[in-house]
Amino acid sequence: MAQFEIPQEQWAQVVEKTGGPPVYKKIPVQKPGPDEVLINIKYSGVCHTDLHAMNGDWPLDTKMPLVGGHEGAGVVVAKGSLVDNIELGDHVGIKWLGGSCLNCEFCMEGDEPLCPHALLSGYTVDGTFQQYAIGKAAHVARIPKDLDLAAVAPVLCAGITVYKGLKESGARAGQYVAIVGAGGGLGSLALQYAKAMGLHTIAIDGGAAKGEFCKSLGASAYVDFTTSKDLVADVRAATPGNVGPRGVLLLAVSEGPFHQATEYVRSHGVVVCIGMPAGAYFKAPVFDTVVRMITVKGSYVGNRLDTLEAIEFFRLGLIKAPFEVVPLSTLPEIFEKMEAGKIVGRMVVDTSK
Amino acid sequence: MAQFEIPQEQWAQVVEKTGGPPVYKKIPVQKPGPDEVLINIKYSGVCHTDLHAMNGDWPLDTKMPLVGGHEGAGVVVAKGSLVDNIELGDHVGIKWLGGSCLNCEFCMEGDEPLCPHALLSGYTVDGTFQQYAIGKAAHVARIPKDLDLAAVAPVLCAGITVYKGLKESGARAGQYVAIVGAGGGLGSLALQYAKAMGLHTIAIDGGAAKGEFCKSLGASAYVDFTTSKDLVADVRAATPGNVGPRGVLLLAVSEGPFHQATEYVRSHGVVVCIGMPAGAYFKAPVFDTVVRMITVKGSYVGNRLDTLEAIEFFRLGLIKAPFEVVPLSTLPEIFEKMEAGKIVGRMVVDTSK
Amino acid sequence: MAQFEIPQEQWAQVVEKTGGPPVYKKIPVQKPGPDEVLINIKYSGVCHTDLHAMNGDWPLDTKMPLVGGHEGAGVVVAKGSLVDNIELGDHVGIKWLGGSCLNCEFCMEGDEPLCPHALLSGYTVDGTFQQYAIGKAAHVARIPKDLDLAAVAPVLCAGITVYKGLKESGARAGQYVAIVGAGGGLGSLALQYAKAMGLHTIAIDGGAAKGEFCKSLGASAYVDFTTSKDLVADVRAATPGNVGPRGVLLLAVSEGPFHQATEYVRSHGVVVCIGMPAGAYFKAPVFDTVVRMITVKGSYVGNRLDTLEAIEFFRLGLIKAPFEVVPLSTLPEIFEKMEAGKIVGRMVVDTSK
Amino acid sequence: MAQFEIPQEQWAQVVEKTGGPPVYKKIPVQKPGPDEVLINIKYSGVCHTDLHAMNGDWPLDTKMPLVGGHEGAGVVVAKGSLVDNIELGDHVGIKWLGGSCLNCEFCMEGDEPLCPHALLSGYTVDGTFQQYAIGKAAHVARIPKDLDLAAVAPVLCAGITVYKGLKESGARAGQYVAIVGAGGGLGSLALQYAKAMGLHTIAIDGGAAKGEFCKSLGASAYVDFTTSKDLVADVRAATPGNVGPRGVLLLAVSEGPFHQATEYVRSHGVVVCIGMPAGAYFKAPVFDTVVRMITVKGSYVGNRLDTLEAIEFFRLGLIKAPFEVVPLSTLPEIFEKMEAGKIVGRMVVDTSK
Repeated sequence: MAQFEIPQEQWAQVVEKTGGPPVYKKIPVQKPGPDEVLINIKYSGVCHTDLHAMNGDWPLDTKMPLVGGHEGAGVVVAKGSLVDNIELGDHVGIKWLGGSCLNCEFCMEGDEPLCPHALLSGYTVDGTFQQYAIGKAAHVARIPKDLDLAAVAPVLCAGITVYKGLKESGARAGQYVAIVGAGGGLGSLALQYAKAMGLHTIAIDGGAAKGEFCKSLGASAYVDFTTSKDLVADVRAATPGNVGPRGVLLLAVSEGPFHQATEYVRSHGVVVCIGMPAGAYFKAPVFDTVVRMITVKGSYVGNRLDTLEAIEFFRLGLIKAPFEVVPLSTLPEIFEKMEAGKIVGRMVVDTSK
Repeated sequence: MAQFEIPQEQWAQVVEKTGGPPVYKKIPVQKPGPDEVLINIKYSGVCHTDLHAMNGDWPLDTKMPLVGGHEGAGVVVAKGSLVDNIELGDHVGIKWLGGSCLNCEFCMEGDEPLCPHALLSGYTVDGTFQQYAIGKAAHVARIPKDLDLAAVAPVLCAGITVYKGLKESGARAGQYVAIVGAGGGLGSLALQYAKAMGLHTIAIDGGAAKGEFCKSLGASAYVDFTTSKDLVADVRAATPGNVGPRGVLLLAVSEGPFHQATEYVRSHGVVVCIGMPAGAYFKAPVFDTVVRMITVKGSYVGNRLDTLEAIEFFRLGLIKAPFEVVPLSTLPEIFEKMEAGKIVGRMVVDTSK
Repeated sequence: MAQFEIPQEQWAQVVEKTGGPPVYKKIPVQKPGPDEVLINIKYSGVCHTDLHAMNGDWPLDTKMPLVGGHEGAGVVVAKGSLVDNIELGDHVGIKWLGGSCLNCEFCMEGDEPLCPHALLSGYTVDGTFQQYAIGKAAHVARIPKDLDLAAVAPVLCAGITVYKGLKESGARAGQYVAIVGAGGGLGSLALQYAKAMGLHTIAIDGGAAKGEFCKSLGASAYVDFTTSKDLVADVRAATPGNVGPRGVLLLAVSEGPFHQATEYVRSHGVVVCIGMPAGAYFKAPVFDTVVRMITVKGSYVGNRLDTLEAIEFFRLGLIKAPFEVVPLSTLPEIFEKMEAGKIVGRMVVDTSK
Repeated sequence: MAQFEIPQEQWAQVVEKTGGPPVYKKIPVQKPGPDEVLINIKYSGVCHTDLHAMNGDWPLDTKMPLVGGHEGAGVVVAKGSLVDNIELGDHVGIKWLGGSCLNCEFCMEGDEPLCPHALLSGYTVDGTFQQYAIGKAAHVARIPKDLDLAAVAPVLCAGITVYKGLKESGARAGQYVAIVGAGGGLGSLALQYAKAMGLHTIAIDGGAAKGEFCKSLGASAYVDFTTSKDLVADVRAATPGNVGPRGVLLLAVSEGPFHQATEYVRSHGVVVCIGMPAGAYFKAPVFDTVVRMITVKGSYVGNRLDTLEAIEFFRLGLIKAPFEVVPLSTLPEIFEKMEAGKIVGRMVVDTSK
């Protein structure tokens, strides 16, 4: 069995008060409890949620001070006495859902993210913007050893989330799904997963560059909200018979797109809310919702099974998520770019720098 | 084969201009086309939709002048040359969905109510507030001859609609569904269908009299919105573990209850909109919708299969819908009471008076 | 917290070699491991499976010597250091599925009974035909304290199993399900659960006495295979339009009924195999299976969620399972009667005698 | 509107007695009834079913004399007075299911192939091995005008059938399905549809040539039953964790493979029977079926919706079915080769030769 030397201290990005910014500093390395593992995080994706957590945008308290991050991939370097299904040296990932009771009605139904005792990585417990993180053995994601840990990191949150959303849309192979915010970090993964699932996609985003990017990832059509004169008509026109897409994935972080979606979605179609703009409301006319039998639903993160499936698609080479590796020390700059809406694809931090 | 004498003229309630009122007068009896039947309507239920149609409340044009009504039951007295699955003397019903193409993608999937060529009884075509009405042979509801035509009339719209809504809630036998507006015409049927389907119901309405009525129809619990100090808490408390009901049926014709439903519904539960208050909007916070994985969906009327099933529950005696028979000539007074919210149970008009 | 005195020795029925018989003797009381509880079993149902286990009928090895029994209800009297969701004094049940890893793909999908590491009570681990049994904390069934422990015992295996089978049939409220072997221990519970789920049942069994018994439990129709001249026709005739039932539950322990079921089941219907006659084969003509789109499926025991639901139906008083309490010491006589097919309803042993 | 000259007589292949052979001769051209169209068939695929029909292999009587064929594509040249959704000149196809009542419970549920009044093309009514065939307007398949009529012909039966079978397997994108008889006419289409649906396939057939062919169509793995020493183990080994495929499509026309499928299918998996060897029986051990929760189901042909979807996959270029065009006059030789098992891919007859 592999043996690892574990330092007393490590580098981490610590949010010390709501509003941030994160502070890059040395903090102690924790020890795993009986049902936990200690993971040497190599890479961690950066998600819009990390920004919301730092800024206290959501009506759910964060741990404070907080080490954020919830898409971390690394190597198991220590484990508790009860852990018999993981070996030292195994590659695993920490995802948004850090733990759940596995014993309540929600967990029994596979709705672990709805467990009242759920632990949220980088939110209610410390996350992956550090070199050594604690994970619950039953919940860490198994990562095959032949996978690039930097490349797989964004799959652990963004990938699982959009994959789950696509499943929740109920769309079947051969049907159309609109992806709102298709050129962003979540969107680019959604286009790839949709394609792997046999779904056709209508990418919606702003600007010609994002259009080309979306097409290169397999989108059937691109609708540019900065130039479209009638977005609802244009989205419908991209489907056979102009009936509109069966599903819509709302990945946007502004409120506007939430209201158009119910207009262009096919009758009996499903609008899936995933992005969570701070303070946003979903609003739809009751009459249309009823006579067109429209469904609006929220999709949160995936469960353990969704995780396993999402990683398997990646392993087969069907998901080639664009990402850029930068030092962990540069996290504050990433947050600034993110707030300015200047990020294409996914940023991944290297914890060794 | 039965033979029937068919008069040239008949009594009808005719809405001559948007806003009404209906005028009780003699009009000609129509002749059925090749794929149609002529039905001697005996009884017709009166639905809130009839009021909306007369008042032009909805963003969909009505035929004008209009004979309203879409829950009519009667006897086939003439038929077109192509009709070979119905005999003169058969008992049939006319429902909201008067016809559809049976050939488009929506019809193929059993979503006949979403067919772009759908005919709406008492709205885009004349309905059942008359003694002789035309029906499409493929769409009229088959009514077993041993059923009371007055008693079955409300099943043809109210019954089918709430039955469909309960199916759309996805709730399984043994689970809880809240019925908002449980003491009204739709609500009293919803309580009965839910019980027949093995569902437990939480009735929500106002006043002690409605509470007793709901309990007598099988409700597991009653929450009185006129006296409850915390309606959300009270609804949740009526379910095991206080997790809230799996489904909510919104039968209310005011906007308020639409907003509470997403608060008390169980995580991963379904809020089904059925009632359509004029100009109402459904509004929900995106954050809660996502992290609690809540679904909001519109349910319109049932298809032909739902109709068949809803009538079968009635035939077995599982649905004893409360109703009161009054003369067709009194329709204007019924509308007045309805607008004042003074009706308990369902009003059924006798077309012979 | 409650305190319990735990003896060193206890009475148990021990099968010492394949073929039996069980020997009533004193054996040591075990101590629970860290994730286990010790249960003072008060009552245990006796199942046909116990007979198969003793006789080695199935192609799966049993533990030997073996304490059988897998429908035991009792009181928690000791627990391991890690158990924090159960208190001493709680009422719990041991069911067929004693444990599973909760970590494999099958467990993640809620198919705990298919877990490769599943523990089978009274088969691969000692069961409930003893006064003190060990249970895995994550898998014992929670039993509300107001329930009669003798009455609930049969629910823990027979109840869960038929409830699961009814769910697997895919039949919806208002549809018909045939129950083959309706007058036996499983059958009588199946009739009750079906009724609670809004399903109509066609009971199939032999003899007038069983017919009356089935009708008293809510069966819509009874077909007596000892007197029916055309069983297939008679079963079909008990459904509207003679199309046959949507689902069939095969609870029989002989091979014959397996072959008729595919003849009388409705086209696109589902035949659910539950009973496991020793060495039996299911055989169906390919042509009919294809052109009538018939499904034949095996349903094993329920998972933890099915267990919770099945007990809740019982708690609400919807399941009044007939049973007879006899001393644990009389187990050999029960097995003899069972082999002779002389048991109506369920036998429950009292471990104190 | 297009105008067409319609001859009095045409060439056809007529089976004059059970056992055949088909006789190439001139017969009269029929006139369409009010709800029918007359189609100038250009190309027709040849299916194993045509052979079974000629030979009277199945327990369902054929029309006699019979013009076989049920995968025909052509141009509408005349129509009845009631047909308003099809224009002269439109391209349409005739499939196995020539007509159904659209009014019974089965049709209402989209199970048109189970309609008691279903018309079977080339079996109970004349089919497509002729130059001019009659089709029911509500049931002919719409074919976009840019599609090659020879290439699309096999999709109309083989394509729809395997597509339906894949849907019935319940397998989701990313899961594995074994295709038994993958190198044949049905099999080669099944591999393509599965890939388009995001499913991974394990092709099972005999010989290296078929292996290469299957791999070229996207199979993940190939198991050669002529050389495999342990077919069950080899199929399982082609899935992650050796658990076996979620679904199995049995396209084989011999009985043997039916019995192995339940051994290698994943626990809780689905074996779908499609091929119908004359007189074959499906046989499975009850014990395994139950404790592994295996489903065996028959899948017949697709409904109108499946047809529309299957053609859309073809239109998008995702299905490049291998076929060979030969003169209609050579049908007897095709049947001979088919009986000898010498056909790779699909044979399509040109009705003009």
